[in-house]
Parts: sequence; C-alpha cells; structure tokens
Amino acid sequence: MQIGFIGLGAMGSAMVTNLLAAGHPVRVWNRSPEPVREMTDRGATAADLAEIYACDVVLSALSDDGAVGGLLLDEELLAVAPPGAVHVNTATISTELAARAHQRYSELGLRYVAAPVLGNSEVARAGNLTVLVAGEAEAIAVVQPLIDVIGRRSWTIGDQPPQANLLKILVNYLIACSIGAMAEATTVTEAAELDPKLLIDIVTDQLFTGVVFPNYGRMIAAREYEPVAFKLALGHKDVNLALDTGQAHGVPLPLGAVVRDAFIDAMAHGQSDQHWLAVTEAVRRRAGLDRG
Amino acid sequence: MQIGFIGLGAMGSAMVTNLLAAGHPVRVWNRSPEPVREMTDRGATAADLAEIYACDVVLSALSDDGAVGGLLLDEELLAVAPPGAVHVNTATISTELAARAHQRYSELGLRYVAAPVLGNSEVARAGNLTVLVAGEAEAIAVVQPLIDVIGRRSWTIGDQPPQANLLKILVNYLIACSIGAMAEATTVTEAAELDPKLLIDIVTDQLFTGVVFPNYGRMIAAREYEPVAFKLALGHKDVNLALDTGQAHGVPLPLGAVVRDAFIDAMAHGQSDQHWLAVTEAVRRRAGLDRG
Amino acid sequence: MQIGFIGLGAMGSAMVTNLLAAGHPVRVWNRSPEPVREMTDRGATAADLAEIYACDVVLSALSDDGAVGGLLLDEELLAVAPPGAVHVNTATISTELAARAHQRYSELGLRYVAAPVLGNSEVARAGNLTVLVAGEAEAIAVVQPLIDVIGRRSWTIGDQPPQANLLKILVNYLIACSIGAMAEATTVTEAAELDPKLLIDIVTDQLFTGVVFPNYGRMIAAREYEPVAFKLALGHKDVNLALDTGQAHGVPLPLGAVVRDAFIDAMAHGQSDQHWLAVTEAVRRRAGLDRG
Amino acid sequence: MQIGFIGLGAMGSAMVTNLLAAGHPVRVWNRSPEPVREMTDRGATAADLAEIYACDVVLSALSDDGAVGGLLLDEELLAVAPPGAVHVNTATISTELAARAHQRYSELGLRYVAAPVLGNSEVARAGNLTVLVAGEAEAIAVVQPLIDVIGRRSWTIGDQPPQANLLKILVNYLIACSIGAMAEATTVTEAAELDPKLLIDIVTDQLFTGVVFPNYGRMIAAREYEPVAFKLALGHKDVNLALDTGQAHGVPLPLGAVVRDAFIDAMAHGQSDQHWLAVTEAVRRRAGLDRG
Repeated sequence: MQIGFIGLGAMGSAMVTNLLAAGHPVRVWNRSPEPVREMTDRGATAADLAEIYACDVVLSALSDDGAVGGLLLDEELLAVAPPGAVHVNTATISTELAARAHQRYSELGLRYVAAPVLGNSEVARAGNLTVLVAGEAEAIAVVQPLIDVIGRRSWTIGDQPPQANLLKILVNYLIACSIGAMAEATTVTEAAELDPKLLIDIVTDQLFTGVVFPNYGRMIAAREYEPVAFKLALGHKDVNLALDTGQAHGVPLPLGAVVRDAFIDAMAHGQSDQHWLAVTEAVRRRAGLDRG
Repeated sequence: MQIGFIGLGAMGSAMVTNLLAAGHPVRVWNRSPEPVREMTDRGATAADLAEIYACDVVLSALSDDGAVGGLLLDEELLAVAPPGAVHVNTATISTELAARAHQRYSELGLRYVAAPVLGNSEVARAGNLTVLVAGEAEAIAVVQPLIDVIGRRSWTIGDQPPQANLLKILVNYLIACSIGAMAEATTVTEAAELDPKLLIDIVTDQLFTGVVFPNYGRMIAAREYEPVAFKLALGHKDVNLALDTGQAHGVPLPLGAVVRDAFIDAMAHGQSDQHWLAVTEAVRRRAGLDRG
Repeated sequence: MQIGFIGLGAMGSAMVTNLLAAGHPVRVWNRSPEPVREMTDRGATAADLAEIYACDVVLSALSDDGAVGGLLLDEELLAVAPPGAVHVNTATISTELAARAHQRYSELGLRYVAAPVLGNSEVARAGNLTVLVAGEAEAIAVVQPLIDVIGRRSWTIGDQPPQANLLKILVNYLIACSIGAMAEATTVTEAAELDPKLLIDIVTDQLFTGVVFPNYGRMIAAREYEPVAFKLALGHKDVNLALDTGQAHGVPLPLGAVVRDAFIDAMAHGQSDQHWLAVTEAVRRRAGLDRG
Repeated sequence: MQIGFIGLGAMGSAMVTNLLAAGHPVRVWNRSPEPVREMTDRGATAADLAEIYACDVVLSALSDDGAVGGLLLDEELLAVAPPGAVHVNTATISTELAARAHQRYSELGLRYVAAPVLGNSEVARAGNLTVLVAGEAEAIAVVQPLIDVIGRRSWTIGDQPPQANLLKILVNYLIACSIGAMAEATTVTEAAELDPKLLIDIVTDQLFTGVVFPNYGRMIAAREYEPVAFKLALGHKDVNLALDTGQAHGVPLPLGAVVRDAFIDAMAHGQSDQHWLAVTEAVRRRAGLDRG
C-alpha cells in the first residue's frame, strides 16, 4: 500500500514521524521545503503532488478550508488517483467542504474519509491524538491501521464524512468557550487582587479535571502562553466554523459570538500568531488591566 | 461548644445530619417546621432564633442575599450573641453582603467566617462538600473541626470573608458557562441529527473529566433533568452575582451575560423550579427544536 | 402653593431657574452649597429639608436610586409633609423604587407623581424637556402647571407612577443602543480608512433624523465628547435599570448586555465622568485603534 | 447608449420602470419569465445575457453574493462586453466580492461601479432611492444620469467600489440594530402590560424621527409585518455582511452578533420570508410571550 502525505506543519510532521516509526513507507509533500527535508531524514520519500495522488492512500494535514479546498478538489490531481484510492483528511474543515469533497470523490470512484483529530502538536508527536472518523465503512477499514498509529483512540462516527467534522468543530467549540470562561473568571480574580491560580486550583481539584481546564487553566492563570501549541488565528477560524455550522442548522450560538469577538480583538492587537490562550489578554484589556 | 444552625433546606439538613452523626449537639431553626422535625428526630434540638444566636458557633445555610441579610444583620439577634461568637455562613451570597456582615460583626466583637460550599445536596449528604473558608484565622481555627465534618476538603482563602464568596461565585460562574456551552453544542448535534451523547462521550473521554462535564453533559444530552439538585432560579441568581462582582471590579463578563439571558428566558417559560441544566431547553427553543 | 425643590445638579438648577422665571417662588435644598447660592441669586429661598417637605409640592431631581431613596422615603421628613402634599420625582429611578415610594406615600395620605424627563441639561435650560407623568390624576392636575414650565411637552402615562419610570428607562435604552450601534459602525469606517462623518451624513439625511442620531452621530464621528451633557456613569446606571426591568418582566435584553459591557470597559479605563458618547472609545480600543 | 438590466425582482423592476418612464430604452433579463413580460409590457426589450453584456451600460439588481458573483464574473459573458463598458451593481454585496469584480473588470478594460441603494421596493418605485456610488470618476459620469432617475439623491463615495458597499452594509447595520433595540424595548412594554405604541410615540416625537424609527417602530409596536418590503432572510444576510466586514477590519461587532442570533432564531422558526421586522417575534418568544 502506497501512502502519500500532504502538509508537514507541526501536526503533519508528527503524524508522518509516527507512521515512519511504525514501519510505513510514506511519500511526502509540503509547500515549503524544510519540513520535507526533515521527514526524508527520517526515511520519507519526497514527492510531487501527482506522485502523492497516485498513492492508494493519501493523508493530508492542512490548516484551513482555503488550503485544503485547493488541493483536495484539484481536478488534475484527482485524475491521477487510482480507482478506489482513499483520501484521509485530518484537518478541521467546514462540514460544507467535507460534503463537497465526499460528493466529488464518490463521483470519481474515489473514497473520502474525514478524520479530524483532537490534540495539539505535542499530543500528535506522542501518538496520542483522538481521531474522529467518518466515511464509507470499507474505506475506513483500509486506513484504520494508519489511524491507529496516529492516534491513541479513534471514534467511528458514521458513513457521512461531514459528521466527523461537525463533531470536531463542536469539540473545539467547547474548548474555546472554556478558555473564554476561564479568561473572564481569572480576570475577575486579578481585578479583585486574588491569585488567579487559586481559582484554577479549586476548580480543577474535582469539578473540572482532564486535559483542558487543568493545563489551560494554569497557563491562563500564569499568563504563560508558550510554547504556542495552537495559534490564536486557528482558534478564531474554528470558532467561526462553529458559528457557521450552527447557523447552517438554525442554531444561534451566542457564547461563540462572544468568544469570536475576543479573538477578533486579540488579532486586531497583533496576537494572531500567539497561543490561543492569549485571548485572555483581550479579556484583561477590557477590564483596564493593561494600563500602567 | 454550643452549635446553632439556621436554614434546613436540602443543603442545611444534610450538613446538620452529618454534624449530628459526628457527635456534635446542634440547635436548629428553620422558617417552616417540617425540616426541624426531621432534624430533631435525628437528635437536634429545636430552638428559636434567639437561642441559636446565643450559641458560641452559628452556622447558616440560607438561599440568597435577601434571606441571609435579614437574619445575619438583625440587630436584636446580634445583641444576644456572646462575645467572640463565630458565625459561619455557608451560603453563596454577594461579596458586598459578606463585607457588610464582616464589618458589623467586627464592630460588635463577633466574628464572621465566610464558608461557601461547592457541591449540591447529594454531595452535602455524603459529607463531600468542598468548603472555601475566609475570615480571621483564630475564628477559623474554632470552626475548622465542624467544617471538616461538612466537607471533604476545605481551602483557606484568606482573612477577608468576601474573598471566599468571590471565589465561590466564580466557581459557579465557570460551571454555568460550561452548562451554557454544552447546551449550545448539543443543540447543534441534535439539529444536525447526530446523537448529543456521542459528543459528550468524546469530550469527556480525556479533555473534560471530573464532576461537571461528564455528569452534567450526560444529563444535558439525554435532556433528563431529575432529580433537581440545583434549581434554575438559583443558577440565575449566581450568574447575577458573578455579573455584579465583575461590574464592581470593572470586568465585563459577556459570556455570563449570555448565560443570564438564557436563564431569564427559561424562567419566563416557567422553568424556575427545574434543574438548572434545563436551561438547555431555552437554547433548544431558540433553534426551533421545540416545534412539533 | 408652596414649592420645594431638592437636588440642584445641572438638571435641577435648570428646572428651578425656569420655575423662578415663570414667577413661581421656590424653596431649594442641595447637598453642596454653591448651587443653592446660584439659585438664591435668581430669587429662590434656601431651605433645610424639613422646610422643603413642609411644602404643598416638592419636586426632586436627584441622580440615582441611592440618593433618591434616602430622601424620598425618610420617615422623619415624610412626617413633616402636610396631608395631600405632592412629591414630583423627575429622576430616572428604578420601577421598584417608584413602586415603593408610591405605596408609602399613599399609606401616609401623600401623593407621589413620577415625572422622569427626557433631555439633557441644555434641553432643561431651554425649558424643552419632555416629561413622562404618571400618578393619581388629581395630583397630576395640581402640578401640571409646573410641569408645563419645565417641559415643552408632557405625556400622561397612567395612574401608576412606575409606568412612567419604565417608559423613561426604555427611552434611554433605545438611545444607549443607538450610541452603541453608531460607535460600532463608525469604528468600522475608521478601521477601513473611510470618514466616519460620511456614514453619519448618509444615515441622518433621511433615515435617522431627530435629536439622537444627527447630534450624537456627529459627536461620535468627530470623537468630540464635550461638553459633558450626560455622564458615562449615568448612562451605565440607566442601562442597568433597563436590564433589571427586563429581568423583572422576564425579558432578556442581549443588546443592553453588550452596551453595559462597553460601559463597564469604559469605566474601568477611567471614563466614568466623561460624556456617555465616549463609550465609543471602548469600542475603538477593542478594534486596536488606540494603539500608536 | 445601450442599457442592459439584470435582475427583475421588486427592486430591479421598480428601477427599470423608472428608467423606461424617463425615456431610456432598456434590455432586460431575469431568471424567471414573468417579470420580463411585465417589463416588456412597459416598453423594455427582452434579451439573453449575451445581449445584455453587449450593452455600453449594464445595471444589475441581484439579491446576494451567490447570485451576483456568478453573473458578474462569468468570463464568457465578460468576453462579450465592449471596451469601456460600465457595469453598475446596485446590490448589497460583500466588499470582498466588489473588490474582486473591480479588479477583474479593470484587467479586461471594463469599468465596475458599485451603486448600492438605500430604500425598499416602495421607495424604489417612487424613484426615491438614495444611491451610494463608488468607482472610477469617468465611469460614474457616464451613468450618473441613470442613477439620477433611479434615486432621489446620490453620494459619490470615492474611486474604490468596495467603499460604497462597506457604507451600505453599515447603513443596514444601523437599521438592523435599531430594529433589534425596538424589538427588545417594545417587548418589555408588552411584558409590563403597557402599550408598545406609547413608547414608540414618545421616542419618535423628537428623539428619533426620519424613516426608520417612526415607520418601523409603529409596525413593530402593532406587530404588523405586511407588506413584506424587505425579507428577513435578506436582513440576516446583511447583518452577516456587516460582521464579516467588521472581522476583516479587526472590529468586533457584538451588537450585530446579537441581532444575527435573533435572525437565526427567526429563520429556525420558519420566518425567512417574512418582513425583517418580524424578528421581533423571536425577541418576544424569548420572553415567553408566545405562550398561550
């Protein structure tokens, strides 16, 4: 089975590293050359896009609808794909783009599997991603061994790819709302001259455990936003995907609208490339805590 | 040490039951007679308010600023209190009322300890409350043994009673925002004809564990709001306390404003006495999911 | 008919000036002495509060529930009032306080008329206020000549004083929302490097004429917030009154919640004493337009 | 000068009618045939799209980015256009689409004029539209006589077409926010058992005059939403354009987010084709006023 991989950002590089380590040969392509070199050093084969699309299985880890859409639905590239080839898209994209891809691939006798992942690049490196998988059962069966290398656990959502994207978008929505809520609450503690860390310690003792509140909470309380495991501009993108999805299904999402505004504020203050937790600074600014 | 207890609602009755079980004699008072009878059956002594205030230690578990303020600052009752008597207020009240009580008690040579608790009546019955304690260190030392009976863990916040109330209000704020976020996200899954439970299962696998997301998430996903461990009207009250506290410290809390509006909507639809998770129904209504 | 007047801020002084100019003798009282001197220079008589309450008609122009409530419901002062005395309260207070005053006055054989006014101090000086009057018809008949001096037009709302306060609160609510909307829209024009004044010129040509959009719009577009005809902290108070009134009647007011947050932001940045139009600066800050 | 017109909805038909009445010959095209017949009855010439694009001046009145984008940037049609031909787009479209059209037309030696209009179909029939015009000065000079037929007044915004669209979007934003604010305020009056019309009468006496508050206010107060001069789904589209424009320029628009949610709610309740003032019903529902 020939495996191609498109997109060697922090997430893609981590996945490819794990696939190589598990003994899978992988052809790789990336817009910029350095990550390709890194991966070929680990045993990957550099390839052009046509060579990638000629593979039986293509995985991609691109960052947004724009980047994804161009490559995913490039008719010239699709023409190269062998019958029954499976494309596994690990990106968080809109349900609308997933639906379009699914339809086009079906028309061409190809198979599209949505496999958005939960976890940042650190989690990806550790092979601990959670993968939400949706698509035709037989296509999933083909790629399940690869998914099991990438992730610690996978959930089979259904046979409609957009369903996995919708759930992924909502997972991120819950994280984004939690970040927003922690940012607001810790800002009150700071304004009241109490230690924000105390609040986080109390709520993460029993009420809110797991990955999000304890880890993100401590970072927010300490206002330490490094390393940048997930960029603020991507968080903004994901909240927009949630609002669009809600709108498409007739569901107002006012909490998301508030969080989106905080992200816009942060980006207008030059924070796009910061950790998305740094949206906390927008919340602090509104309370005048940025003033000397 | 004479112990008096005011307010035998679900929370107060549970605390008194545990105090009695631990061998402490307790004088009790309640507005309505039935809970008093229940507690005297378990060994408590019925008392009028003057007899309660004559105790060395008074604990109270009343439901809101209105009820609390009246009794807490009743000058006739305060005149009965022996010098150095400690009042332990377990209710979630405003920081402003806590500050007023603290000041008045100090003026009278009495001691006021704020000890708001985390946990609903089930948790209270199991003696598993978390207690946030703030007040004069010596006063806390006096009542710590009682607090240890009521709760599984206590946090000593500082010597200013309102600090404990502020943190309690923010803990509830984080819970209320989480409920709001889950209500929105599960409403999208429902509108998209996906099982809300699947979303909750995914996010509570690793990301959001602990008490709030798994327990409340499952109830929200199933739209099962019984038994009513915490009333919607009280949730509304607590979000208002958070907004007021934020305002007092110059911190806008737009997420809380959204949650407050959902509570107002729910109460306008007759849901005041339902479980606060039933605010989900207000979110669903906005998406037209209530329509035949 | 003896006329007493309490509260000689910008609004009260303007009203008294007009009453004096119309030939009415007026006894005046104010917390600070300077405005009293100014009014006595124009023919008023300085008086203490007991002398004011001994009048047949007392008008008051105090700035908030706190200030109003204390004087309005001071039992010692009320004891001085002659039977049937009418108190005309021109302040924007909560419907709840108006209801309490109405009840207490009725119990004492006194009459309470709510007469909140539309217009700032400039309008007041010109005698062009609009007055919303509610109370017992006979009491209104007594004071109508005075109201006609103060205002250009009065509306008789009904026989329940809180009704006038509710309408006044909603009038201010519409103004506050309009300010918020103009602040947001002009901020977009500025961020897009278009002249905000052009937008205001276009919308005030036909669509939005009258007092609010043209006058306030031009000030917002020019970011000229002087003179301070209405303080930001009062605007904040009024939006809070609206939110409380909405809540009391089961009506979520999410637009008001947004405006309130902008006011809190402004106040946290030291703008409490600025013109309420200066809330625009909070909106601009969120867009990063305050950055060098 | 050959004049072509694309899009004979209520707005387009009204404009064509006025152009014909002013003696201009017009070729018309519409997706569905009936409006074409109506216009040919008045003297227009039915044409296919290629015949339209062969004209010196093409005006279009299509309803959204989707419909507009397809025709506006159809390369086959553009190939037919004579050098220097002017396209006048009266629709409310995104600034992004306007920018794309402007660039493509320039590349092809054609000229694109943005001329979004203020006013609904009734206003259009009366020739009383306000037109916001932006584009190359010489191109505007060519079409100004036609614009003067369509509208009562035109504003020359600048030489960049997207500027006119941005201002149009913000004008509609102010209207949408005003509708939202009136809906909220009148809902409070209704919940308080006061006549909403009284509130509207008071505020439109002096404070808010012009087209929007008096006309829309009376309809909202009476809950009379007929005839449907502007559809709710279009209002929703316009608020989305504003939010997108704000986001593109780094400006959070939280009031718009609130209004958008009310529109989503209304559309989820089947109100897409109702008058956009009927968004009031969504506001009333949240207050429980829809319940028997």
